[in-house]
Amino acid sequence: METEISSLGEFGLIDRVTSDLTARNSSTVKSVGDDAAVLTYPDTDVLVSSDMLLEGVHFDLTYMPLKHLGYKAAVVNFSDIYAMNGTPRQITVSLGISKRFTVEHIDELYAGIRLACDIYGVDLVGGDTTASRAGLVISITCIGDVAKEEAVGRDGAKDTDLICVSGDLGAAYMGLQLLEREKAASAGVKDFMPRFEGKEYLVERQLKPEARKDIVAMLAEAGIKPTSMIDISDGLSSELLHICHASKTGCRVYEDRIPIDYQTAIMAEELNMNLVTAALNGGEDYELLFTVPLHCHEKIKEINGVKVIGHITSESLGCELVTRDGAEMPLRAQGFNHLEG
Amino acid sequence: METEISSLGEFGLIDRVTSDLTARNSSTVKSVGDDAAVLTYPDTDVLVSSDMLLEGVHFDLTYMPLKHLGYKAAVVNFSDIYAMNGTPRQITVSLGISKRFTVEHIDELYAGIRLACDIYGVDLVGGDTTASRAGLVISITCIGDVAKEEAVGRDGAKDTDLICVSGDLGAAYMGLQLLEREKAASAGVKDFMPRFEGKEYLVERQLKPEARKDIVAMLAEAGIKPTSMIDISDGLSSELLHICHASKTGCRVYEDRIPIDYQTAIMAEELNMNLVTAALNGGEDYELLFTVPLHCHEKIKEINGVKVIGHITSESLGCELVTRDGAEMPLRAQGFNHLEG
Repeated sequence: METEISSLGEFGLIDRVTSDLTARNSSTVKSVGDDAAVLTYPDTDVLVSSDMLLEGVHFDLTYMPLKHLGYKAAVVNFSDIYAMNGTPRQITVSLGISKRFTVEHIDELYAGIRLACDIYGVDLVGGDTTASRAGLVISITCIGDVAKEEAVGRDGAKDTDLICVSGDLGAAYMGLQLLEREKAASAGVKDFMPRFEGKEYLVERQLKPEARKDIVAMLAEAGIKPTSMIDISDGLSSELLHICHASKTGCRVYEDRIPIDYQTAIMAEELNMNLVTAALNGGEDYELLFTVPLHCHEKIKEINGVKVIGHITSESLGCELVTRDGAEMPLRAQGFNHLEG
Repeated sequence: METEISSLGEFGLIDRVTSDLTARNSSTVKSVGDDAAVLTYPDTDVLVSSDMLLEGVHFDLTYMPLKHLGYKAAVVNFSDIYAMNGTPRQITVSLGISKRFTVEHIDELYAGIRLACDIYGVDLVGGDTTASRAGLVISITCIGDVAKEEAVGRDGAKDTDLICVSGDLGAAYMGLQLLEREKAASAGVKDFMPRFEGKEYLVERQLKPEARKDIVAMLAEAGIKPTSMIDISDGLSSELLHICHASKTGCRVYEDRIPIDYQTAIMAEELNMNLVTAALNGGEDYELLFTVPLHCHEKIKEINGVKVIGHITSESLGCELVTRDGAEMPLRAQGFNHLEG
């Protein structure tokens, strides 16, 4: 079924995608349907983060289903709030929609956004919907809360702090390479079936990433407050340099400690790509990178899915990767920066 | 001077446009430079509103200087917060920038955004900057505050309430017609000079609108809390229908009471357009439309720049315009809806 968006109009479309919304969070006083949402945060600090995703730059609809795209667009915003040691509570969603999209397409996109909101306990409270003359544009702002004085920024890392990372790195980037390879292979082939066997994890990391709510909860439970934290959207190197720059420190990261899934390793081998480069510079893992005081070492070791990969040094020692053979190489921000090159 | 954005990169560009920011509002705890901004609103409710502007849909850079565009993009968001009876405090700005823009272009755009922030006392606290493959994309989220229980929505209008509007209507739309006319006339003409004499007000209303902070302040001073309020972005008819729909009421609006500037009238005459249609359906005036209880009549008359244009009725009486000759015509939402037609 294909329904033209013009048959509903802007307000009809907004009514459709925001029907049956019920607020989950006590901070949501008034949701969609007015000039602004009304929220209340009497006892906590408020966190606000915005992200924009553009078709052809951040996603390719030939292999990104709209429901997954909606899910991912919401989750990457939640990830920013978790990276501040907070809890996401509300989002506003602004969409630019070109003529080739139907009402059913937008339903799919919102199904993904709403699924993410269901799973992470977030309320959709507003936004804007407009026509786009180019592709699909998605801009999401996430509002969250954090106990007073408990927000964790990028600027608190101290000399001798341990550098920790959750999950594993490079898989989302390898998933993107795989999807691009299969897209290229499909060109002109009738009934093309992509080959993802044994590489499902990579595809999932690219198409349906999760935000590490669990890690923030486990840290709180263990009584550990990180001295600095950031989520890995542009690659480990780039994020680590952000922390060191903001904290005025250096760092040492050990190549052999960087967590990498075996599927990521196999894929890098298959594509003849450098695995460490993929893990250091491949983006979109949405894992948490954080630093904790040295005395937390024993406690951190007990947290499932967190690995200590190095330590903070004084600024004068620079930011270096220690390779398997003991050599030091400067870390560089080679994230896949859309504005460069 | 033209500096390519790639020479700075995303983070260099963000550093450049957000340098020297100082927080004006006590609610701004931590501004740009982290995964999220940190705010505090212990004693008030929080308002959140998002708007997206797309090149070729909402603005045309052939006659819209980038500084004006930045100013307008910020102000229209402030307007949404005032329309809730609140005060804008922070904005996040997400930009999608195509290759034809230079660093100096983005400086201009931000100069406008920052000027609007200076004038309205708002802090720029975050956002996102990315490449766009199409034109310029601007998505702004505004956060504001309002005393608890004092937010004014669209849904509180009551039978017999007076319908009030600030300023005058239709001028921004006539300004757009004038700019489009001069753009068409300029095609292929060397050293073309547009003719704006005597019509400066129309051009200013289109290119540099203001949000009615003053009206919200005057209402508070007079001890008047509107029963409903909305800002006029899509035209008087459309907004009045929003209020009546949300409040489950009807309304009567008197044609001869609709405030129209003489430049708007002259321009409509020149272009052979219906003046009332322009005032009812022309968008982007960013005036405030609100309802107050009947007993406020004397107080409202004393507020400079506010006019009573009609009254709320029971729902069964419908939403009608009373023409100069006493006939009734149903109000229709013929706003210039980008998703339709």
